[in-house]
Amino acid sequence: MTDIKTYIAENQSRFLDELFGLIRIPSVSPRPENKPFMKIAAGYISELLLKAGVDHSQVYETPGNPVVYGEKITDKTKPTVLVYGHYDVMPADPLDLWTSPPFEPEIRDNRIYARGANDDKGQMFMHIKAFEYLAKSKKLNCNVKFMIEGEEEVGSAGLKDFCTKNRELLASDIIIVSDTTMATEDTPSITNGLRGICSFEVEVTGPDRDLHSGHYGGAVMNPVNALSKIIAGLTDHQQKITIPGFYDDVEIISDIEREELKKAPFHIEKFKKSIKIPDVYGETGFTVLERIGMRPALDVNGIWGGYSGEGTKTIIPSKAFAKITIRLVPDQDPDKIAALFEKHIKNTAPAGIKVDVKYLHGGKAYVSPIESKGFVSASLAYEKTFGKKPIPIRSGGSIPIISDFESILGVKSVLMGFGLESDAIHSPNENFRIEYLHKGIETITWFYHYFAGVNS
Amino acid sequence: MTDIKTYIAENQSRFLDELFGLIRIPSVSPRPENKPFMKIAAGYISELLLKAGVDHSQVYETPGNPVVYGEKITDKTKPTVLVYGHYDVMPADPLDLWTSPPFEPEIRDNRIYARGANDDKGQMFMHIKAFEYLAKSKKLNCNVKFMIEGEEEVGSAGLKDFCTKNRELLASDIIIVSDTTMATEDTPSITNGLRGICSFEVEVTGPDRDLHSGHYGGAVMNPVNALSKIIAGLTDHQQKITIPGFYDDVEIISDIEREELKKAPFHIEKFKKSIKIPDVYGETGFTVLERIGMRPALDVNGIWGGYSGEGTKTIIPSKAFAKITIRLVPDQDPDKIAALFEKHIKNTAPAGIKVDVKYLHGGKAYVSPIESKGFVSASLAYEKTFGKKPIPIRSGGSIPIISDFESILGVKSVLMGFGLESDAIHSPNENFRIEYLHKGIETITWFYHYFAGVNS
Repeated sequence: MTDIKTYIAENQSRFLDELFGLIRIPSVSPRPENKPFMKIAAGYISELLLKAGVDHSQVYETPGNPVVYGEKITDKTKPTVLVYGHYDVMPADPLDLWTSPPFEPEIRDNRIYARGANDDKGQMFMHIKAFEYLAKSKKLNCNVKFMIEGEEEVGSAGLKDFCTKNRELLASDIIIVSDTTMATEDTPSITNGLRGICSFEVEVTGPDRDLHSGHYGGAVMNPVNALSKIIAGLTDHQQKITIPGFYDDVEIISDIEREELKKAPFHIEKFKKSIKIPDVYGETGFTVLERIGMRPALDVNGIWGGYSGEGTKTIIPSKAFAKITIRLVPDQDPDKIAALFEKHIKNTAPAGIKVDVKYLHGGKAYVSPIESKGFVSASLAYEKTFGKKPIPIRSGGSIPIISDFESILGVKSVLMGFGLESDAIHSPNENFRIEYLHKGIETITWFYHYFAGVNS
Repeated sequence: MTDIKTYIAENQSRFLDELFGLIRIPSVSPRPENKPFMKIAAGYISELLLKAGVDHSQVYETPGNPVVYGEKITDKTKPTVLVYGHYDVMPADPLDLWTSPPFEPEIRDNRIYARGANDDKGQMFMHIKAFEYLAKSKKLNCNVKFMIEGEEEVGSAGLKDFCTKNRELLASDIIIVSDTTMATEDTPSITNGLRGICSFEVEVTGPDRDLHSGHYGGAVMNPVNALSKIIAGLTDHQQKITIPGFYDDVEIISDIEREELKKAPFHIEKFKKSIKIPDVYGETGFTVLERIGMRPALDVNGIWGGYSGEGTKTIIPSKAFAKITIRLVPDQDPDKIAALFEKHIKNTAPAGIKVDVKYLHGGKAYVSPIESKGFVSASLAYEKTFGKKPIPIRSGGSIPIISDFESILGVKSVLMGFGLESDAIHSPNENFRIEYLHKGIETITWFYHYFAGVNS
């Protein structure tokens, strides 16, 4: 059998065909109308696993979307690696900003353009192919289990349930995940921290119907004006979150860690230019990377209410809505924060309206130790592929299930991401560089080598 | 020839057929895609005028939507009444809140339910029928001119142009308009004041695309958070508008006028119940009727940005928008206020974003003298129909063209409205009571009697 580089080169067009087949299934988990596609995507992955060489594979129903499980047990005395990934994707809108259709992958400039090209269909797919190589070439020197879910973008409720009910099935020594981003394209990095999250929908109700703003304006609290006051009041002029008790459990960043972070490659002008903003903006007293990686943040993800068509419609809208997420850091508890948030909104809402807060989902922040066997093996694997020792980074994103894995299964995760910021995940024109798809497969193969010893 | 009551009774089903034909034309002026219907509606009205007995009628093209003109000149030495109305209507959305389709009129509980049933197709139609009666029964003792436009809901730019170019054609002694609301169903009233208006669209731009709120949250100003801060900052805790210089030209309400207003029928609990709000809310130091009729107000008519679908989409939206209208009072100048608004928004916008303000249209407030011949004639006409002397009221709404009539044509207007608050104009389930449609026709007929002398 040939080496991994040659294997990738010889099979690359088949790899793309297989991945494109998965991408074409619009498994958008935040959209209930796309529900039928979740089962189709799960079945497709189960097939991929079987073709790659697992002993058996099964699609498990959950209260939400199905979980795909597959395993190859080579020797029960050997270590077991559990691979986690997800097949669900974010909605593709606004559709008019896509150059090519989001669910019809297209290659341009050696990048795959499609929703899920990176997050996480593309990155998850690398694990199946790395495993396929090791299984086919008889180089697998450990047990491998796959657990691929369909609700990562909406809080992983089904998977949490699945983990709780299948602790033995999922017994393992390490969990590996590719669902994160590297520091830069020239800076291999392993994410050793993730922020937690709380997600809300706030609904403000004023009059029972849209009112003529001339006949009522000035005497009735306008739900949009009220919602704006509520949102504006959630952060102060220093961009600190004003919810009483919010910072009580926030981990204090040590000076050593702050010094370490300053070594990470970061160019503020390049950062601003890459997203075309006039200036950065955030919590007073912290750098951009600290604000993203180590400090909480509160963002409105969407707002709507009243008239949004052409021209003017002179109404006081009956209702206004906002979707709000708060990113958490260690050691904030999402349920506790959610309760504080709800209480604060109720306490500070202006008179004359009714406000409802729906807590959609929450997940804790996560930090993994960089001296563990898993982290060290991953580090060596990256160095082998990229020719550079990777740096540990804290991501501002959230994969709430990672901290659940620790509490439910008692297993740590290693976050071996191969994404780049330019991949535009969650945005129009999401893409994934084919070069990094290949590098990912290569690195994951080396991870097994260092973690479990490969017969080569 | 019979009297007006009998004439209405004998012709009521034809009246409804004719009005319904007009309502079925979706002449929604704020929607460019409805443009073709404006000409159709104008043509329909021109036909109605001819059938009612005008000497001739013409549809005038304007840079915007056409203006329908028609006249009957009985004797050039006699007074001339100019009737103003509009055939354009507000958008009907949200459509799902309508019990019956907005452009398919339906009678329930002796009310006509449809967009435009009251505003202003229904109220304008009364004038055509009052004229028809007087013309057919040879009781018309003055000259009558009709000027019916199609851009009232979007600022009347075309009509303003038409008036400027046709001063002689439109020469008249009084303008009568039915496009307002009565104090209560038992309180006939004539509107002697209207608020002015400034209408804006505010656009906040942050990053050049929607960003992953995990990977950027905390370091980038979120356009929705920014827009909320901007809107929240436009009013203070006393609900005063914070724009510097905003109140400089505001007319001071005299104690006498405030005392007069206190006599108007108003029940705060009934008011709250009628629109199902927990409490009224407005500028400190003023009553509800003062806040609506005599004080400025700032309302967001619509807001949008980012994700509004099911579940959560963890993004920092690239853009956020709001439509905002400010109601003005005498002697505020809309263009001056618009400049102050724009300057204030630019000055107070948070860093890290770009903000654009589009001034959509503006119109001055209007006050008409209650001792004028027009007002007195209207007052007698109401008393004849309703058996009660009407009270003068200041409406919170705006008909910007009314103050333009005064400055361009040099003619005062009398606002003889027959709407009720329960008619829900601009809202879903707009309706008009058939009883008030008939009372309106009757009252207008009596207006001619008192204003010009009718041969009866």
